[in-house]
Amino acid sequence: MTQLPKTPLLDQVIYPADLRKLEDRDLPQLAREVRDEMIDAVSRTGGHLGAGLGVVELTIAIHSVFDTPDDRLIFDVGHQCYPHKILTGRRDRIRTLRQEDGLSGFTRRAESEYDPFGAAHSSTSISAGLGMAIAADLDKTDRRVIAVIGDGAMSAGMAYEALNNAGALDARLIVILNDNDMSIAPPTGAMSAYLARLASGRTYMGFRDLGKKLTAYLGKNIDRAITRAVEHARGYVTGGTMFEEMGFYHIGPIDGHSFDHLLPVLRNVRDNGRGPVLIHVVTQKGKGYPPAEAAADKYHGVNKFDVITGAQARVKPNAPSYTSVFAEALVQEAALDDKIVGITAAMPNGTGLDKLAELFPSRCFDVGIAEQHAVTFAAGLAAEGYKPFAALYSTFLQRAYDQVVHDVAIQGLPVRFPIDRAGFVGADGPTHAGSFDTAFLTTLPGFVVMAAADEAELKHMVRTAVAYDAGPISFRYPRGEGVGVDMPARGEILQIGKGRIVKEGTKVALLSFGTRLADCLLAAEDLDAAGLSTTVADARFAKPLDHELIRQLARHHEIVITVEEGSIGGFGSHVMHFLANEGLLDNGLKLRSLVMPDIWMEQAKPEAMNAHAGLDRAGIVSTVFKALGRGVAVGVAG
Amino acid sequence: MTQLPKTPLLDQVIYPADLRKLEDRDLPQLAREVRDEMIDAVSRTGGHLGAGLGVVELTIAIHSVFDTPDDRLIFDVGHQCYPHKILTGRRDRIRTLRQEDGLSGFTRRAESEYDPFGAAHSSTSISAGLGMAIAADLDKTDRRVIAVIGDGAMSAGMAYEALNNAGALDARLIVILNDNDMSIAPPTGAMSAYLARLASGRTYMGFRDLGKKLTAYLGKNIDRAITRAVEHARGYVTGGTMFEEMGFYHIGPIDGHSFDHLLPVLRNVRDNGRGPVLIHVVTQKGKGYPPAEAAADKYHGVNKFDVITGAQARVKPNAPSYTSVFAEALVQEAALDDKIVGITAAMPNGTGLDKLAELFPSRCFDVGIAEQHAVTFAAGLAAEGYKPFAALYSTFLQRAYDQVVHDVAIQGLPVRFPIDRAGFVGADGPTHAGSFDTAFLTTLPGFVVMAAADEAELKHMVRTAVAYDAGPISFRYPRGEGVGVDMPARGEILQIGKGRIVKEGTKVALLSFGTRLADCLLAAEDLDAAGLSTTVADARFAKPLDHELIRQLARHHEIVITVEEGSIGGFGSHVMHFLANEGLLDNGLKLRSLVMPDIWMEQAKPEAMNAHAGLDRAGIVSTVFKALGRGVAVGVAG
Repeated sequence: MTQLPKTPLLDQVIYPADLRKLEDRDLPQLAREVRDEMIDAVSRTGGHLGAGLGVVELTIAIHSVFDTPDDRLIFDVGHQCYPHKILTGRRDRIRTLRQEDGLSGFTRRAESEYDPFGAAHSSTSISAGLGMAIAADLDKTDRRVIAVIGDGAMSAGMAYEALNNAGALDARLIVILNDNDMSIAPPTGAMSAYLARLASGRTYMGFRDLGKKLTAYLGKNIDRAITRAVEHARGYVTGGTMFEEMGFYHIGPIDGHSFDHLLPVLRNVRDNGRGPVLIHVVTQKGKGYPPAEAAADKYHGVNKFDVITGAQARVKPNAPSYTSVFAEALVQEAALDDKIVGITAAMPNGTGLDKLAELFPSRCFDVGIAEQHAVTFAAGLAAEGYKPFAALYSTFLQRAYDQVVHDVAIQGLPVRFPIDRAGFVGADGPTHAGSFDTAFLTTLPGFVVMAAADEAELKHMVRTAVAYDAGPISFRYPRGEGVGVDMPARGEILQIGKGRIVKEGTKVALLSFGTRLADCLLAAEDLDAAGLSTTVADARFAKPLDHELIRQLARHHEIVITVEEGSIGGFGSHVMHFLANEGLLDNGLKLRSLVMPDIWMEQAKPEAMNAHAGLDRAGIVSTVFKALGRGVAVGVAG
Repeated sequence: MTQLPKTPLLDQVIYPADLRKLEDRDLPQLAREVRDEMIDAVSRTGGHLGAGLGVVELTIAIHSVFDTPDDRLIFDVGHQCYPHKILTGRRDRIRTLRQEDGLSGFTRRAESEYDPFGAAHSSTSISAGLGMAIAADLDKTDRRVIAVIGDGAMSAGMAYEALNNAGALDARLIVILNDNDMSIAPPTGAMSAYLARLASGRTYMGFRDLGKKLTAYLGKNIDRAITRAVEHARGYVTGGTMFEEMGFYHIGPIDGHSFDHLLPVLRNVRDNGRGPVLIHVVTQKGKGYPPAEAAADKYHGVNKFDVITGAQARVKPNAPSYTSVFAEALVQEAALDDKIVGITAAMPNGTGLDKLAELFPSRCFDVGIAEQHAVTFAAGLAAEGYKPFAALYSTFLQRAYDQVVHDVAIQGLPVRFPIDRAGFVGADGPTHAGSFDTAFLTTLPGFVVMAAADEAELKHMVRTAVAYDAGPISFRYPRGEGVGVDMPARGEILQIGKGRIVKEGTKVALLSFGTRLADCLLAAEDLDAAGLSTTVADARFAKPLDHELIRQLARHHEIVITVEEGSIGGFGSHVMHFLANEGLLDNGLKLRSLVMPDIWMEQAKPEAMNAHAGLDRAGIVSTVFKALGRGVAVGVAG
């Protein structure tokens, strides 16, 4: 372990109230110490680094000027909240970030009164903040509400919906647009280009001088009509009329690393004016840590790393990641079929579509943080005979649920949905778990829903999805590495709605959907050893179900157990529904369904989460024993 | 039946190709005839009237100028598509609109090659159109894509997501913003105000002269750099910079009822330029039919009516509608508890929240077509101790699924979700059916999910939702009238997770969730009469389940049947999961689960849809008989 950084000033600051006792001139020093503390903490835990480094001054300035937690401070997404956690009574636990039983990597209401609204998915802060601002109005208090949102998050529709509503109401909402010209990847879209024009134009350069004049002026004029006139006059200077047209008083762009800019502007906004205000702040992601500043991704999310060199710990993988297997299989198929196109919502790297973009740039589309648009855009391409792969994480696909239902499924359009990060995801916790995709997709008539049991299966499913053109099709796969199976040179086309028997037995049937297959096979070893001859099947499809396979399992076994790393309502529910309505349960077949438990499971290692859920080898064995009236196994093979 | 209108010109037009043979000077006459034809048709079928009347000239102009169906014309939402259907080979069936086996009330790919993209939910057309425009690029054709979208639809985030993406790509997409200052209700929000300023300012008045000059000029300049300069110059005239800042070439506002405006602009856009174009067209909803023009809602959706007087047929209801029962109960509670607030997404009338707005205007919020924002805005209010009722239709709640998961459920915030139009909705067909809400809400840990069996139950559930403050809670109820039960003066607070036995029997148990209870009771009469003593229970809660009730039904009956007007994955799946994992199925209990069938069910009367689904009296009886190995009942009590 390296030594802890020296932080004499920060050591005096446990809560923002302590911070408010400091002089303005002390704040740059405090910022340096917060940065050192944060770098040290994340070097030990891994996590989100670049975003937090970019808002150190902004976070300090807000807590210095506003009366948190009475004034409400909401961080959009929340991955930039580590400095905020350090300054709000959680520094003593900052080296437990994202660990089991440790601090969350995002803001969380349950964690602190300084987190008035939790986050993790992007672009929610303006809506939540507007709700709180309206509540303050109804309460007749002068409580302020501040939402800090990144420029990347401004590509999502719900941010616009909230601006549109806020601009029409007269609530006292302060939106701070943290413009670092980055979300996770460099952002795309017209809004981003617009913000870049605002921030890079002469007007920004000139603002250093203009700033004090304007804020002094603003300070004297709390009358809305007068400020309106000022803002229109100002429009010619900054060109920043879009937010003004949306009904916001618009200040900026200002330098988000300069307390000389931040403090007077925030104080003016705190003390004056009504109605919604948008402060456009320009910051640098990764600021103050040279390795982060130099990196293309600004150390957005990092493993543990060496503070001096910036070198990140790299665990040598045993097998390729599912993401890379997907990406390589897709690229392989795309080379053979020029109708294949890829769509990502601001996650080219996370989904592996960057590989497609590299080879076929005209056939890969990053639409920004805009999952709804991504899916309907894909539907438009499918309507014209293309084969769109709309690659999203399970948790983000939730944003496009209605578009999946309406624009894809009802029309029967052959959009392909590779669903990454399906199942437990570990350190990101319940907000990023891929829990619900199987449940919400299998309700949809005509949808084909697959899950890959291993990386070779994933390759087959990519090929199968290319070949299947009769309607929508999805395939889910987890975060992390494959299980190390031999890989075929090219994927095979699977027969739609057909599973496979992986191991034959006579008494117990384990019917797995997706990556729990490996644990089912291990459990089968234990069960066989205990004299319970066990069949293991890989369903491959949750929809359409392999009725023949299920019938066979039901007829020739004493007990059938479905196993999946997903919520209730998914694969297991469909199997049960089929068995019940076919009368296959009428004669006393024992049926059990293993799914994720009905709780929001906290961050931990995925293996620990599966164990806790009873979805691992031991959990499966114990379910069988319990169902058959046996005691818990002794001496289970390890 | 009144006489059919005389339509000599329209009689020559079966397809747009026929229309293109007409002279420009004939088009106003054609517009009059289309209007007459449409008014007559809707007077016989009921349906959406005002929106279609507003776009008669626009629809004719588009088909006249563009080469549909090779050029793609997408109507957003699609309820304005009746003139389009009349002109695209479907006039012979126009009097079957929204009837069983008739034309859909929306655009539908399956119905016509002139409907390249189906719709029904708002704000999808720009995304779909962009996908098609990109496909045209990849295909290296000069196929045009035109998306017609209303100003109301511009409040939805996904429209913005699509603009943002389109503005950054250089695809040849033509967006026609049909600005009638109305969606279903008068629109709210800053964008709407902005459009109104554009349309009502001097600039619009001046454009009548300016129009020809500009379009002539545009026609000469296809070079992007030059048009850029023009557009910036034009910015000062029209002030229409928002769309330009988003990367669109912006034309308008122009008069959407004047062929002299429409034709030259559309021809110029057809023949010149690349990249995305937005044409701002001002129309009048209900145009050309005086009763519609005079009505506040512009005859948005109407029953059958008398063409001469405009008087709509009103069927005398037997019982109050569920919507009005909800609204009255909410207003009653709101008078007693000032923490109650209401939120609607552009449906104040449809949800009944207009009654709340009337009495407590400061506590009711219409956020526009913006379901995502609506839910997170409600979450913000809940975080501050308010009791928000986010009233949405089941089908529209899908748009806010991720916000329900993240901003409400994970945080355990007590947002109340009244879910109207749950179950089959009749004439609006599969796009508006409330099928999936129970399935997608019951997967969420900590959610309380209720369904009202009748209008008195609904009143109890409103009160229960007011009283329950421990987390999110929902209650679903169908479109249409209640069953006519006695109404309590005030709702009772139900015990969370407790159902009720409505009728006791010994052999068959019917366990209903929601409004199928009435049919269960009728089925029980038939079953009793057939010697099968039947218990009927109303579950009230799909989550948490009433384990005691379910255990009791399972232990003391030969067969248990769950009945719900919803998709697989909902109530029945949860009951099965509980029974299976508790071992209550191990001894040969017969279990059946009745849900909506796995098809997109076409429009028909709700009763017919329930019958087709096997969810009515006869379907329930036949399921029991089949499960018990009896033949189909003969002489079932009627």
